[in-house]
Amino acid sequence: MGTVPLLSDKEVSAEALAIFDDIRAVRGTDYVNNFWRALAHDPETLAATWARLKQVMAPGALDPLVKEMLYVAVSTANGCSYCVHSHTAGAKAKGMTPEMHGELIAVIGMAMQTNGLVTGLQVDVDEVFQA
Amino acid sequence: MGTVPLLSDKEVSAEALAIFDDIRAVRGTDYVNNFWRALAHDPETLAATWARLKQVMAPGALDPLVKEMLYVAVSTANGCSYCVHSHTAGAKAKGMTPEMHGELIAVIGMAMQTNGLVTGLQVDVDEVFQA
Amino acid sequence: MGTVPLLSDKEVSAEALAIFDDIRAVRGTDYVNNFWRALAHDPETLAATWARLKQVMAPGALDPLVKEMLYVAVSTANGCSYCVHSHTAGAKAKGMTPEMHGELIAVIGMAMQTNGLVTGLQVDVDEVFQA
Amino acid sequence: MGTVPLLSDKEVSAEALAIFDDIRAVRGTDYVNNFWRALAHDPETLAATWARLKQVMAPGALDPLVKEMLYVAVSTANGCSYCVHSHTAGAKAKGMTPEMHGELIAVIGMAMQTNGLVTGLQVDVDEVFQA
Amino acid sequence: MGTVPLLSDKEVSAEALAIFDDIRAVRGTDYVNNFWRALAHDPETLAATWARLKQVMAPGALDPLVKEMLYVAVSTANGCSYCVHSHTAGAKAKGMTPEMHGELIAVIGMAMQTNGLVTGLQVDVDEVFQA
Amino acid sequence: MGTVPLLSDKEVSAEALAIFDDIRAVRGTDYVNNFWRALAHDPETLAATWARLKQVMAPGALDPLVKEMLYVAVSTANGCSYCVHSHTAGAKAKGMTPEMHGELIAVIGMAMQTNGLVTGLQVDVDEVFQA
Repeated sequence: MGTVPLLSDKEVSAEALAIFDDIRAVRGTDYVNNFWRALAHDPETLAATWARLKQVMAPGALDPLVKEMLYVAVSTANGCSYCVHSHTAGAKAKGMTPEMHGELIAVIGMAMQTNGLVTGLQVDVDEVFQA
Repeated sequence: MGTVPLLSDKEVSAEALAIFDDIRAVRGTDYVNNFWRALAHDPETLAATWARLKQVMAPGALDPLVKEMLYVAVSTANGCSYCVHSHTAGAKAKGMTPEMHGELIAVIGMAMQTNGLVTGLQVDVDEVFQA
Repeated sequence: MGTVPLLSDKEVSAEALAIFDDIRAVRGTDYVNNFWRALAHDPETLAATWARLKQVMAPGALDPLVKEMLYVAVSTANGCSYCVHSHTAGAKAKGMTPEMHGELIAVIGMAMQTNGLVTGLQVDVDEVFQA
Repeated sequence: MGTVPLLSDKEVSAEALAIFDDIRAVRGTDYVNNFWRALAHDPETLAATWARLKQVMAPGALDPLVKEMLYVAVSTANGCSYCVHSHTAGAKAKGMTPEMHGELIAVIGMAMQTNGLVTGLQVDVDEVFQA
Repeated sequence: MGTVPLLSDKEVSAEALAIFDDIRAVRGTDYVNNFWRALAHDPETLAATWARLKQVMAPGALDPLVKEMLYVAVSTANGCSYCVHSHTAGAKAKGMTPEMHGELIAVIGMAMQTNGLVTGLQVDVDEVFQA
Repeated sequence: MGTVPLLSDKEVSAEALAIFDDIRAVRGTDYVNNFWRALAHDPETLAATWARLKQVMAPGALDPLVKEMLYVAVSTANGCSYCVHSHTAGAKAKGMTPEMHGELIAVIGMAMQTNGLVTGLQVDVDEVFQA
């Protein structure tokens, strides 16, 4: 259970419902997931988050599948269970194969490990790495 | 300054020097960065880390540039300054353009933000996201 | 399920029971929440934690509601689900309105986002910010 | 040194310069801090971040000083050195006294401590805390 | 529920089953815990993780119980619920008494607290602490 | 530079100076490290932190060296550079050999890695691990 109740379509404001409709249209599905239903208590944050998410996750110099995997990587390091679930599902929907998933997880584990080794040893940054 | 001194080629064990030589051969450069020079105090961990890193970061279902960017994402979420520097440099060396770098940073920021929103609201995972 | 069982009033030591009684008196309720019932396995830590919590969360230069919201902010960044729940409940009990809750969550999300942007770009601290 | 160079007014795009001008106008100072000068490599992210920051940090149900202190709390938990420095400076500029700063730090320390105790013991959330 | 199904002995590859058999032999139990059953989707990562874990957690300059407690400490700071549970169980199996567990938790809480105080105040490292 | 200036003996309150004197007496050295000099702006937090630290880090069911290593483990996972430095120095002063240091770092790295693997896969906790 969350710290706020999830809001149904009938319980949200008109402003929030318009965002739900845009989520449905952009994603081509009637399903609006729990994150947005929790965020709908604050229509301004709902609107700003959805607007920026659409912009950031759109195809660009990086393709949307790579972006979903980057999202999983950050969410894993931050220990956000919901986010790992939702963006792993998103990555699968965008074509992530089991092999790609396995490599994603392996890179995350490797990075976590060397993050720990480096921080434990407090290694100074090499001059050659600095912009 | 680190919690252990960085070891020069002359100060490391024969086992560690062999790893340094492999790093040089695989990367096509004489430069061995500080991480390995700190890790060389413990040749077993040096050997195991390098062996696994080669395996994990090799081309596979994901290409090496994507893997470097995933590494930057995890390292940023963990606040590992050295790792952000070294893997950003690695990503640039593998072809990351300024546009790709900008999108990488934007996705990291977006993920951090929604990680915070979701955790602050303690949103339950949707059944549809579960494997 | 926790890594230790929760202790009922009948199962705790006399020292721990005295702390439970003080928790009840200070908070004006019979309910002692799970955190204290888990901590009661170690009466010294129970006593030290409760004593310091009373001191830190008391009215001072900052009011208790602000302190509860700061607690939620830290707990969210650390991914402590129990702590987010208990201190969100605490903040509501001290007068946090839905509007305040919405702004609290929005600030947490914003801070998480710029934490990620700054760390990803490894921005140097401006001299003007240093004490 | 960062992973990207800081951009002077002369080096940024017209779009980024317009954001710098708005930062100056809103804050009533000529100084544009390093964060924005690093972010200016990606004008879209610069514009979106500044627009949302203005919205989130504006006076509302919470006052701007409380918001700055919440920002410090999150940034501390995430280990973002730059962010701790910049938002502590921001809080001081908005009236945070040494006494308030001391209490802010004490609450952060307390929250970190009980986050650790709770997570180490894996305490289940009390039903009474659930929305 | 995880992001991948847990694999039974009948569902895993021959390579993964051989790892399961080694886990059983080394630990002297038929039980193979969920972590390995999830990891078995990627036999290479399963094999590498198990091989390195055996090496790292073996008796050496530190005894295995101390290593399990260190594992709990890191896992708590990272908020990994599964890992806190599994390594607390491992520590108990290796002889951790309730008194030792209590002190482990108290040290974790203390370290979390001063991590927060130090980071909030951005204290410079004393020269005497540098290697 | 920190967010508060470090206070010399002449600049602190009588209450804080008494804590400094106790630190000197307990540790058998004239040197008072920066953490305490920053914390001295808030004598109440200085006193409470020092009192609890003495209690938690004293010999008990776990020996002080193990406690220092646990402190390094938590501080590494939290990315607290100051804390890693100060408690690594503390562990060395209490007898941590280079071999022990190497194993400490290796366990931290291993734990970080499997924390990432488990969280990325969202593995459910085995019933057998629950208290």
